[in-house]
Amino acid sequence: MKTISILGSTGSIGTQALEVVEKNKDKFSIFALSCGNNIELFKEQIRKFRPKKVSVKSKESALELEKEFSNSNYKLEIMHGPEGLIEIAQDGINNQILVALSGFAGLYPTLAAINAKIDIALANKETLVTAGDIVMQRVKMQGINLLPVDSEHSAIHQCLCGHSFKKIRKLIITASGGPFREWDIEDIKKATCSQALAHPKWNMGKKITIDSATLMNKGLEVIEAHHLFDVSYDDIDVVVHPQSIIHSAVEYLDGSVIAQLGLPSMHIPIQYALSPERIEGIKTGSFDFVKVQNLTFEAPNLGKFPCLRLAYEAGRAGGTCPAVLNGANEEAVMAFLEDKIKLIDIATLTENALSAHSKIQNPTLSDVIDADGEAREFVRSKI
Amino acid sequence: MKTISILGSTGSIGTQALEVVEKNKDKFSIFALSCGNNIELFKEQIRKFRPKKVSVKSKESALELEKEFSNSNYKLEIMHGPEGLIEIAQDGINNQILVALSGFAGLYPTLAAINAKIDIALANKETLVTAGDIVMQRVKMQGINLLPVDSEHSAIHQCLCGHSFKKIRKLIITASGGPFREWDIEDIKKATCSQALAHPKWNMGKKITIDSATLMNKGLEVIEAHHLFDVSYDDIDVVVHPQSIIHSAVEYLDGSVIAQLGLPSMHIPIQYALSPERIEGIKTGSFDFVKVQNLTFEAPNLGKFPCLRLAYEAGRAGGTCPAVLNGANEEAVMAFLEDKIKLIDIATLTENALSAHSKIQNPTLSDVIDADGEAREFVRSKI
Repeated sequence: MKTISILGSTGSIGTQALEVVEKNKDKFSIFALSCGNNIELFKEQIRKFRPKKVSVKSKESALELEKEFSNSNYKLEIMHGPEGLIEIAQDGINNQILVALSGFAGLYPTLAAINAKIDIALANKETLVTAGDIVMQRVKMQGINLLPVDSEHSAIHQCLCGHSFKKIRKLIITASGGPFREWDIEDIKKATCSQALAHPKWNMGKKITIDSATLMNKGLEVIEAHHLFDVSYDDIDVVVHPQSIIHSAVEYLDGSVIAQLGLPSMHIPIQYALSPERIEGIKTGSFDFVKVQNLTFEAPNLGKFPCLRLAYEAGRAGGTCPAVLNGANEEAVMAFLEDKIKLIDIATLTENALSAHSKIQNPTLSDVIDADGEAREFVRSKI
Repeated sequence: MKTISILGSTGSIGTQALEVVEKNKDKFSIFALSCGNNIELFKEQIRKFRPKKVSVKSKESALELEKEFSNSNYKLEIMHGPEGLIEIAQDGINNQILVALSGFAGLYPTLAAINAKIDIALANKETLVTAGDIVMQRVKMQGINLLPVDSEHSAIHQCLCGHSFKKIRKLIITASGGPFREWDIEDIKKATCSQALAHPKWNMGKKITIDSATLMNKGLEVIEAHHLFDVSYDDIDVVVHPQSIIHSAVEYLDGSVIAQLGLPSMHIPIQYALSPERIEGIKTGSFDFVKVQNLTFEAPNLGKFPCLRLAYEAGRAGGTCPAVLNGANEEAVMAFLEDKIKLIDIATLTENALSAHSKIQNPTLSDVIDADGEAREFVRSKI
């Protein structure tokens, strides 16, 4: 029996992870859950999974939960704020923490879990994008397992299973291409929020869906892959594959390519991160190549999608640059979601934030946090 | 340094294996080679690789080699006939034998190597098709490694690397579909030998090219896969994939599919069988999804290609049936290559040979040999 806590249990990854846990009650037990704003769903999850500890965003939500659960026999410890997340993450009772928080907030509890020598399933891009060197160094030092939940990185992890990292020639990260793949550059510049939110293949949160439309998401994944698998940027390719069936691939020294495939579903990468030894999947029925019929591939268009280029540049520059890229992008995406800027402005603002930044090559954690703050402030000042 | 002998060094697999050895002189040394009829090429290979032992098909060829190499300082032991092959295969100096003989003749030296506890790279289908139970039982008993050289089985082996056989849900063997994939059934019945020899994707020997045109080759591969990976016939699918880029795949319990890809080239599976830890490939330059552009998949048409159905039936029946299937097919293909029968007759003769056969469920090796002989005799009597 593996004891698991889920940070961000009401989000897209969190809810699917709980489905995996429910299907495999003999293998997993829930120790703690955390949630942001979706308190009603969170109450349901608490009733169903009976965690020992929970944490919510605000004090008000915490009081609401106290009222709800104080009269029952069930003893529940209720916390709130960033401290609540850290408290859960570093509790030694956990065998593994699933970090399914979105944004920069995922970094601190991830580090807390690493320091407490607890294995991590990581569904938070920002942690590795902004502080990849620091995080991976601590992961190695503590000797813990950090397993990616992103479908692309999970695919690469599965393709590397049983092989040596030293034998990698190239990582190939696939991209659906997003909703604007076939649009003209001029139309993309004028794209609305609802158009950008209409992702053709994956049903995800808003922030990541916009990042998929600009291909920034793919750029962040390239930076993540660089840290996770210790592969240089020259050896990480992005290939547009609109069907999203091949989730990513590894080419080895001998020219052999191993790819991981499946219908687009986050259940498989979530389950693999919780149980890499593979257990019966949630969905029965086999993958059928014949139903898929046709897989196509094309090169990404960096002219139409400058965010991908920016991510490679920031990744190669290293130091605090990826944190600036991420912070500026996150702030710009929020402004886009509030209709304050156009889609093209996301790339422009991010590029300008990078230009304005004085890079620190070997940053401390607080340098990274400062760079993130500086980038956000820069973007806000331009809107 | 790994000491290797190649049985069938002048064939398609043998020559490519020698290219791999030549490129990796620091990793492999050649102990012995054998050849059938291509004595001129064999002489060149002997001059280049300086084996200690060689074996040829006929006594005449052996005498010819004696004349050629007797005056040099170089000491070469020259043998001939089936005994020569066995002598080479069981020499304890070998770390691995590559069995690249075609047809039933591969069985005896393979068994000799297994008995001598020598690892095997197997490029001979008939060994496992006809005597899979016996061979795999001895492989396990002796604790040796038997690595497949066929591109499909090599692909599956690579996809299984680091995973447990117990977690397999399904094997998916891909097939190019051969030259008659899009032909009408009536046209296929009348197909000529040269049409059948025009394989769209792989440049191989004549026998296997005809087997590819009838899909018998795929059927034999299904039987091989059943033995190699201990998977039931219900869990082995064949998918037609005309581009021959995905060489085969494994679906796991959790629904995740791992596939092995690459441009059609036997160098990769040969090299992998000789060195599964992966070494720099013969061909430089990376695989490019963008150049490949498009991968398509369709179900095999068992009406048009009855040989695939026959192979599944013979495999499921087990016992001596696969040996009858293989023997009858081999004899019929020879007759087709000599223009004595039509393409459709290969399936009909094989089906009739299977119907006429009284199956032995748990055959000894000599039962298998008798079944093979009986099937060949049956086919010859009908032509």
